[in-house]
Amino acid sequence: MALRSAAVRLLSNTQKCAVVTTSRAQGTVAAEWYDKVQKAKVPFNWRDALDLEGQLTEEEVMIRDSFRDYCQEKLMPRILMANRHEHFHREIVSEMGDLGVLGPTIKGYGCAGTSYVAYGLIAREVERVDSGYRSVMSVQSSLVMHPINAYGTEAQKEKYLPRLARGEILGCFGLTEPNHGSDPSSMETKAKYNPSSGTFTISGAKTWITNSPVADIAVVWAKCEDGRVRGFILERGMKGFATPKIEGKFSLRASATGMILMDEVEVPQENLLPNVSGLAGPFGCLNNARYGIAWGALGAAEFCFHAARQYTLDRIQFGVPLARNQLMQKKMADMLTEITIGLQSCLTLGRLIDEKKSAPEMISLLKRNSCGKALDIARQARDMLGGNGIADEYHIIRHVMNLEAVNTYEGTHDIHALILGRAITGLQSFTVGK
Amino acid sequence: MALRSAAVRLLSNTQKCAVVTTSRAQGTVAAEWYDKVQKAKVPFNWRDALDLEGQLTEEEVMIRDSFRDYCQEKLMPRILMANRHEHFHREIVSEMGDLGVLGPTIKGYGCAGTSYVAYGLIAREVERVDSGYRSVMSVQSSLVMHPINAYGTEAQKEKYLPRLARGEILGCFGLTEPNHGSDPSSMETKAKYNPSSGTFTISGAKTWITNSPVADIAVVWAKCEDGRVRGFILERGMKGFATPKIEGKFSLRASATGMILMDEVEVPQENLLPNVSGLAGPFGCLNNARYGIAWGALGAAEFCFHAARQYTLDRIQFGVPLARNQLMQKKMADMLTEITIGLQSCLTLGRLIDEKKSAPEMISLLKRNSCGKALDIARQARDMLGGNGIADEYHIIRHVMNLEAVNTYEGTHDIHALILGRAITGLQSFTVGK
Amino acid sequence: MALRSAAVRLLSNTQKCAVVTTSRAQGTVAAEWYDKVQKAKVPFNWRDALDLEGQLTEEEVMIRDSFRDYCQEKLMPRILMANRHEHFHREIVSEMGDLGVLGPTIKGYGCAGTSYVAYGLIAREVERVDSGYRSVMSVQSSLVMHPINAYGTEAQKEKYLPRLARGEILGCFGLTEPNHGSDPSSMETKAKYNPSSGTFTISGAKTWITNSPVADIAVVWAKCEDGRVRGFILERGMKGFATPKIEGKFSLRASATGMILMDEVEVPQENLLPNVSGLAGPFGCLNNARYGIAWGALGAAEFCFHAARQYTLDRIQFGVPLARNQLMQKKMADMLTEITIGLQSCLTLGRLIDEKKSAPEMISLLKRNSCGKALDIARQARDMLGGNGIADEYHIIRHVMNLEAVNTYEGTHDIHALILGRAITGLQSFTVGK
Amino acid sequence: MALRSAAVRLLSNTQKCAVVTTSRAQGTVAAEWYDKVQKAKVPFNWRDALDLEGQLTEEEVMIRDSFRDYCQEKLMPRILMANRHEHFHREIVSEMGDLGVLGPTIKGYGCAGTSYVAYGLIAREVERVDSGYRSVMSVQSSLVMHPINAYGTEAQKEKYLPRLARGEILGCFGLTEPNHGSDPSSMETKAKYNPSSGTFTISGAKTWITNSPVADIAVVWAKCEDGRVRGFILERGMKGFATPKIEGKFSLRASATGMILMDEVEVPQENLLPNVSGLAGPFGCLNNARYGIAWGALGAAEFCFHAARQYTLDRIQFGVPLARNQLMQKKMADMLTEITIGLQSCLTLGRLIDEKKSAPEMISLLKRNSCGKALDIARQARDMLGGNGIADEYHIIRHVMNLEAVNTYEGTHDIHALILGRAITGLQSFTVGK
Repeated sequence: MALRSAAVRLLSNTQKCAVVTTSRAQGTVAAEWYDKVQKAKVPFNWRDALDLEGQLTEEEVMIRDSFRDYCQEKLMPRILMANRHEHFHREIVSEMGDLGVLGPTIKGYGCAGTSYVAYGLIAREVERVDSGYRSVMSVQSSLVMHPINAYGTEAQKEKYLPRLARGEILGCFGLTEPNHGSDPSSMETKAKYNPSSGTFTISGAKTWITNSPVADIAVVWAKCEDGRVRGFILERGMKGFATPKIEGKFSLRASATGMILMDEVEVPQENLLPNVSGLAGPFGCLNNARYGIAWGALGAAEFCFHAARQYTLDRIQFGVPLARNQLMQKKMADMLTEITIGLQSCLTLGRLIDEKKSAPEMISLLKRNSCGKALDIARQARDMLGGNGIADEYHIIRHVMNLEAVNTYEGTHDIHALILGRAITGLQSFTVGK
Repeated sequence: MALRSAAVRLLSNTQKCAVVTTSRAQGTVAAEWYDKVQKAKVPFNWRDALDLEGQLTEEEVMIRDSFRDYCQEKLMPRILMANRHEHFHREIVSEMGDLGVLGPTIKGYGCAGTSYVAYGLIAREVERVDSGYRSVMSVQSSLVMHPINAYGTEAQKEKYLPRLARGEILGCFGLTEPNHGSDPSSMETKAKYNPSSGTFTISGAKTWITNSPVADIAVVWAKCEDGRVRGFILERGMKGFATPKIEGKFSLRASATGMILMDEVEVPQENLLPNVSGLAGPFGCLNNARYGIAWGALGAAEFCFHAARQYTLDRIQFGVPLARNQLMQKKMADMLTEITIGLQSCLTLGRLIDEKKSAPEMISLLKRNSCGKALDIARQARDMLGGNGIADEYHIIRHVMNLEAVNTYEGTHDIHALILGRAITGLQSFTVGK
Repeated sequence: MALRSAAVRLLSNTQKCAVVTTSRAQGTVAAEWYDKVQKAKVPFNWRDALDLEGQLTEEEVMIRDSFRDYCQEKLMPRILMANRHEHFHREIVSEMGDLGVLGPTIKGYGCAGTSYVAYGLIAREVERVDSGYRSVMSVQSSLVMHPINAYGTEAQKEKYLPRLARGEILGCFGLTEPNHGSDPSSMETKAKYNPSSGTFTISGAKTWITNSPVADIAVVWAKCEDGRVRGFILERGMKGFATPKIEGKFSLRASATGMILMDEVEVPQENLLPNVSGLAGPFGCLNNARYGIAWGALGAAEFCFHAARQYTLDRIQFGVPLARNQLMQKKMADMLTEITIGLQSCLTLGRLIDEKKSAPEMISLLKRNSCGKALDIARQARDMLGGNGIADEYHIIRHVMNLEAVNTYEGTHDIHALILGRAITGLQSFTVGK
Repeated sequence: MALRSAAVRLLSNTQKCAVVTTSRAQGTVAAEWYDKVQKAKVPFNWRDALDLEGQLTEEEVMIRDSFRDYCQEKLMPRILMANRHEHFHREIVSEMGDLGVLGPTIKGYGCAGTSYVAYGLIAREVERVDSGYRSVMSVQSSLVMHPINAYGTEAQKEKYLPRLARGEILGCFGLTEPNHGSDPSSMETKAKYNPSSGTFTISGAKTWITNSPVADIAVVWAKCEDGRVRGFILERGMKGFATPKIEGKFSLRASATGMILMDEVEVPQENLLPNVSGLAGPFGCLNNARYGIAWGALGAAEFCFHAARQYTLDRIQFGVPLARNQLMQKKMADMLTEITIGLQSCLTLGRLIDEKKSAPEMISLLKRNSCGKALDIARQARDMLGGNGIADEYHIIRHVMNLEAVNTYEGTHDIHALILGRAITGLQSFTVGK
């Protein structure tokens, strides 16, 4: 009885308000409009918050999808043990060669000739699995194939590029020296020309060289007698050339890292990269690689975000999923934000490179941003996993360790800040003396 | 003579290394290539690090440029005293009306019908001067004209939109109540329908209402007897309608802020916005406004970045410009990075809205990101100015104070985190009960 | 009946486990032990998390309590309008004089001769109300009375100290110049000795001088003809001495700030502070003041923490107090932590100063830490208040603005970092040249 | 000639200024005063910025020094390979036993009976080498010996404590379960009393148990039939008791971590810890351990700070030591600050515990602060080492990995925030339901 009268009252209340619209026969209109809104409403996709997908070409999506399948199906199952036991699977390079993702932006010489955006997508997919694998790929593509293509002779290109593209041979890149990391202009490795034999004698040491222990060739930068830095292609087997492995590395353990020791290595003059001199050479390579890193690091960040999200959804504490906690949600909101805006800018940069409108500082900006943010995201994600976060089977601790190196190599976070600072102010602050 | 011998010496040094290339007559080629690189090299523009400009349409650039001129020439000279003395220049609204920037995305009714990207660019330019001015504009465009356009009758549109577009009348938006900020669903303002007179009686209080003390009309949200929230257009002069100013505000001082007190205000039923009910109404408006804020806040950030850069270039300490210090350059590198990637994403979002592919969470993501980052940038910039940073004539302290409000209103930083958290996890964490 | 059987069941369950203890008649023992634990349990006091109180002497507590009463009862009611309208209440200085808190650590000359810890507690209480008031007091005590006491003649001490201690006259301190903030060694103010008249002619400009517009005397630092910096006591009324007020200040508005313009001011040689030369003089004063700031800034932080706590307890959103939200609690946990550990270290430092075991770098460390952390706490607290956070009646926005200056003056956050950096490494990085 | 006249000019300049003092024969006085200042000046010790040393007792210093020698001479040489190869040196426990640092605060039973401050200093020294070693020690002292001492029978104490103190047997602590980390009240491990045999049957699984694979005894917490949690001493060899090692751990690799699997383990009732029930038991242990962690984590931070300082002093880039860069100095200033203020508060807490004036929330506050700050310091230090920072021979990457676990275990950073939040507000926000 009481219930019924309440219902009547409620109904009559509703009518009071609805009378206006009803009286103008707009109730239906309003309802339709609301339906339209509902239908029109675009669902939010937390995996792609600003519709990156819609901004890619069909070809780019296709390349990305097929490579993602490879990464998830072939690389992901191998990475746990590879990282745990510091084992580098050399065959991966060949597999990548088969897929056409080595030196992908190069036209000709057996290379795919994709857009730079596609190159970025490839880097993102492989680093979603492991930064070590991406490093192997970056070195081969940007630091070995790129300089040969950009600065090499036709003969050099024909000799090396197709085999590198197939993953038949593996390359490495020797710039950093034991005493000269951020400041390569002080390099101590020397190249001396011998007019009689038409060869260069190269002596010096390079360190923290990805791939070196297993590489077949090395693009090495040395200072010539005129004080200018030039690049040379060294081959394993040359006398005086050694590549000891660096032990006890707690980052990028699935890739091999070592030194390049050159004790009076005699290098034929055909192995000089003739079309560049000065630091523009190695810097051009690094820019190329950094662009890939800018995409790749965010791939690693995406993995960590997705894994932490799933973990906190699955794990119940105090009667609810961890993901129900504000502190967890805030961390995820931050992750999503940085990944989203970082990727958008990588895409813009890729398009600018494709249109030849990019400047190196753009790459510094995004290499620095992606790496710094990815490292932070990985750390937060690890934290979200609590104790389980230190076990490699959850993968995130591996990304944390990897990204420490990624944030450091190819220009540390601070060095890129100073590069940008110089671009902003016109004043350099690298060195103390003017 | 000395010069010539130096050249010879240099040449001979060069030859030692260059012999290879020379012998193959590639010296010239290399030189030419280098020239090409130099010529091809895109200069880096720290004012637009990822070439936002190149992604705008000509029309957008034109709208932006002419409005920027107005902002710099007409608003900038007024803002110092307006902010210092909490004075709102009502005539600015009319000037904006003349320029066609009020309700700019609306088609017809005397509105410009621009793209959402153009709207964003407008917001950025005005907030480069002051967030208070942008707030005035946002309220008029997104919170008053938008709901009338989206939810109003044809008669309402014709009656109000042209006058609002011209800045002839000024509007305000009443949602927030003294006890209900982040949680508007608990609002206490009531609307009671009177069948006899065909009017609604509205009672309640709204607070922190931009423009209210000087507004001619107010779009007010009230809970009807059926428990649903509906919007009403109230006009100054209605009996029981008062808009006391809030004193002692240390943010957005160049705009007027007040309450809306409604003591049994009788509102004709023609003033009900018929085409929406529930919180979808005010939320739709807020989304619209938040989009503008996402752009605007970065405009304020850009001002602070540019001003701090110039200040540190001009100010000499310890014999060099402050800008020569690493600690200063790092701050600027961070600013440049966040502004750049933030703006890129705003552009993407604008395009998505224009294509009707946007979701509210996208706007939450960027409103939150832009505001949080802009506030941080403004604080850093103020710090870079040292003692001068607290003087209003350097403008940055004003932006610091303004952005505190901007980061808070239309959804606080934390609330948007929880909106995103819900979108990511499917679990809401706003409320404690499930 | 049902209840009784439930009790029996419960009891029998308990017995199953309790049998062991019962069998050895230890049930009672255990219960007693638990009682003891409960009784022994020290309740946690969130207002004093590490029992600072227990580490103070009775005298220190007494001084602190009586001054706190004054601050809360006499200063707190005046600050809102004083800050809103940039009004400096000169009579406060006299009131402080009556309370004996000016130059409190000085022995004799009408000063209280308290411990440095007591001085710190005084600074904390006054800055809990307003940093502007603390600034007035710091200048009088550390920057005017201290140098006269430390570097002045007996005659100077007798002439000035008692009147300064009573608050009868107010002093200011002129070091910073328009072009020289962080680098006072480049000061341009000159003092030229006139042997004939036995006077110095001082010319130059000082800026950002707390108290200057209303000060009766000024301790001014000038470069003598031998290139050494020396201190002079200038008096209002001397010809060529002017102190224009700085307008448009959005920080420390309750204190007066201005310039000191000296156009060939003739100063008798009796007004030279004879017992110091070089920057050791002003730096000694600054150290003294910075110590007070280290305590004071945390007092401001405590106010913000307590106010935000109370606000979030009182404000209901989504059906629960805001304080029930994890995001709020985390902010408060951070605040409590930094305030607690910061204050503990201030106490340790105070004791070290009293024992003459302090070094200036210790003060740099804590001035920097307290100010940086207090500013961050104030910002977080303001954020917790949402829209209300920008209204001065809630006081927190005032602290936010004040602490911007406090974090900057007497050595910016960055300058103190470099002071510490030099102490850590032995290498200075202030200047670019070696 | 020119020199001489310059000297004369300089002298006369000096005299002009000095005349005042000279004329009053105060030149000498001033000089003496300056000397005094110089002599009095306390040199700043960056290794102990607020003179912690001066606040320790002679006995505490002695204990600390002898244990530091052991750590540096005996542990440091073993840690590199132990961590690289995940090898736990069991003999270290015996060595520690010989030194008297196991259960050091316990009176009697062969324990040292030191102050809690001494216990903290011990933890700091061992964690300066490795958090894994400190974990082994914490578990033995705080989680095994402490509960036996606090909650055990006289017989239990006599049976276990002396052997544990000597390191003859090693213990572990089973609380955390696979599904219950931050929320132990939901534990699933059950203890069922068997009146006939006078034994308990315990079943369940514990995980992330430091020492478990090599422990001789385990203090395990299980839920009895009355729903109350109670502690039991299990011994290796009991039927159904297994302790599989957790593989693939990238944190605390020098200590062994595993599970405790209990499949109907029959435990004599003499092995029940009778004097506690409920979570107060394990929480009391955790508080004890957390106190040690608060000190220990800062020891690890100190190592990282010192190592990064030395590295940047030794490494030359761009012609100067890395340590000469502002960006480096700022990082070090931050490290020094947090270490200094953190340690001061640990000392205060230790004294409060010794005086029985401590509350658990104090420990939460400092466990959280020390761990969070130490982790941040370790990360910054690693970054300062550039590429070398990922090599274990520089030790810092090891601390980075270790501190991830240390920041997580015994209450995560977030959980302690919520513990503090509850203490501040009186409202718990762990769980969603009220």
